[in-house]
Amino acid sequence: MTLSARNKLVGKIEELQSGGVMAHVVIRVGDNLIESVITKRSADEMKLKVGDAVVAIIKSTEVMLEKS
Amino acid sequence: MTLSARNKLVGKIEELQSGGVMAHVVIRVGDNLIESVITKRSADEMKLKVGDAVVAIIKSTEVMLEKS
Amino acid sequence: MTLSARNKLVGKIEELQSGGVMAHVVIRVGDNLIESVITKRSADEMKLKVGDAVVAIIKSTEVMLEKS
Amino acid sequence: MTLSARNKLVGKIEELQSGGVMAHVVIRVGDNLIESVITKRSADEMKLKVGDAVVAIIKSTEVMLEKS
Amino acid sequence: MTLSARNKLVGKIEELQSGGVMAHVVIRVGDNLIESVITKRSADEMKLKVGDAVVAIIKSTEVMLEKS
Amino acid sequence: MTLSARNKLVGKIEELQSGGVMAHVVIRVGDNLIESVITKRSADEMKLKVGDAVVAIIKSTEVMLEKS
Repeated sequence: MTLSARNKLVGKIEELQSGGVMAHVVIRVGDNLIESVITKRSADEMKLKVGDAVVAIIKSTEVMLEKS
Repeated sequence: MTLSARNKLVGKIEELQSGGVMAHVVIRVGDNLIESVITKRSADEMKLKVGDAVVAIIKSTEVMLEKS
Repeated sequence: MTLSARNKLVGKIEELQSGGVMAHVVIRVGDNLIESVITKRSADEMKLKVGDAVVAIIKSTEVMLEKS
Repeated sequence: MTLSARNKLVGKIEELQSGGVMAHVVIRVGDNLIESVITKRSADEMKLKVGDAVVAIIKSTEVMLEKS
Repeated sequence: MTLSARNKLVGKIEELQSGGVMAHVVIRVGDNLIESVITKRSADEMKLKVGDAVVAIIKSTEVMLEKS
Repeated sequence: MTLSARNKLVGKIEELQSGGVMAHVVIRVGDNLIESVITKRSADEMKLKVGDAVVAIIKSTEVMLEKS
């Protein structure tokens, strides 16, 4: 293990929309869609595009729980 | 839609560990394990236990992307 | 209790401004104004507008303290 | 204005509980209780105690909205 | 000590770009560049501009670690 | 570039303290000390110890600015 963030979800980009400073990315992870907002600069530098294989990474302190 | 957070992952608690102030919860979501750190108080008040059906909720600004 | 996030502030939307990807929302909560930045998609899907009753939700790990 | 974080809620500490590394602080802000989790080190260095006047500070990107 | 956030990095603004709602700020801190995304409103109200001395503030729960 | 998080600070662990669920890590980065709170599980699995070379990673949306 090399990164402390405990959540790493392997998926594929389904949609990518850029604004002035931020970019909204939708990723298919199994049966779920994961949505991420990153800087437009990172999206550009990573040359993200629909169909790219990516990993969504989330620090565990950012995950809330709801009991149904 | 009622909550602005865009990521809601339905799963089941596999493991729950409490510390002095925080609790570490592991949730099975399909083929993935999602890990969450919430307050011990919330874990207690929600009476969380292994086997509970829960939804992991994540704001999209907290999701990073890595390109493989 | 059903959601682990410990801060839930009931208020009313006073102002709403959309950018390309994000939306800036100002909420009146008693004597305070709370400001939130969510995705434009959530603001649109929730059909948020000035005057709407909303709850501002904040995970306790995101709250800093300053001693005056 | 000197700090970019847009939410600054003036209150008074009602309760303070320390764990091994983190501390859970409950602050009365008008009719609301705000809960914060900070490092035990900060709580100790700031000499936080029940009754202290504090400001709870929250970055607007950390505030979610729920429509009732 | 007055603010609970444990990371305060003194630097100078090298670049500032505004979008519709957010602003992207690049700060020189010694040998490193720190990048921050804040609301355009805060950037405007603080009258941020290239060359300004600023402090980048980060809550410790937001810092991940990678082992090389 | 492979990770969207824009802040990557190379340093060395100066101090490491574990609680029940979380660990507090102090990293020397040039003239600055960076402090990180990660899960005890990650600290254990990464076998973090004083003297280790690490990279502190921070998403730009988590960086606030203060104008002096």
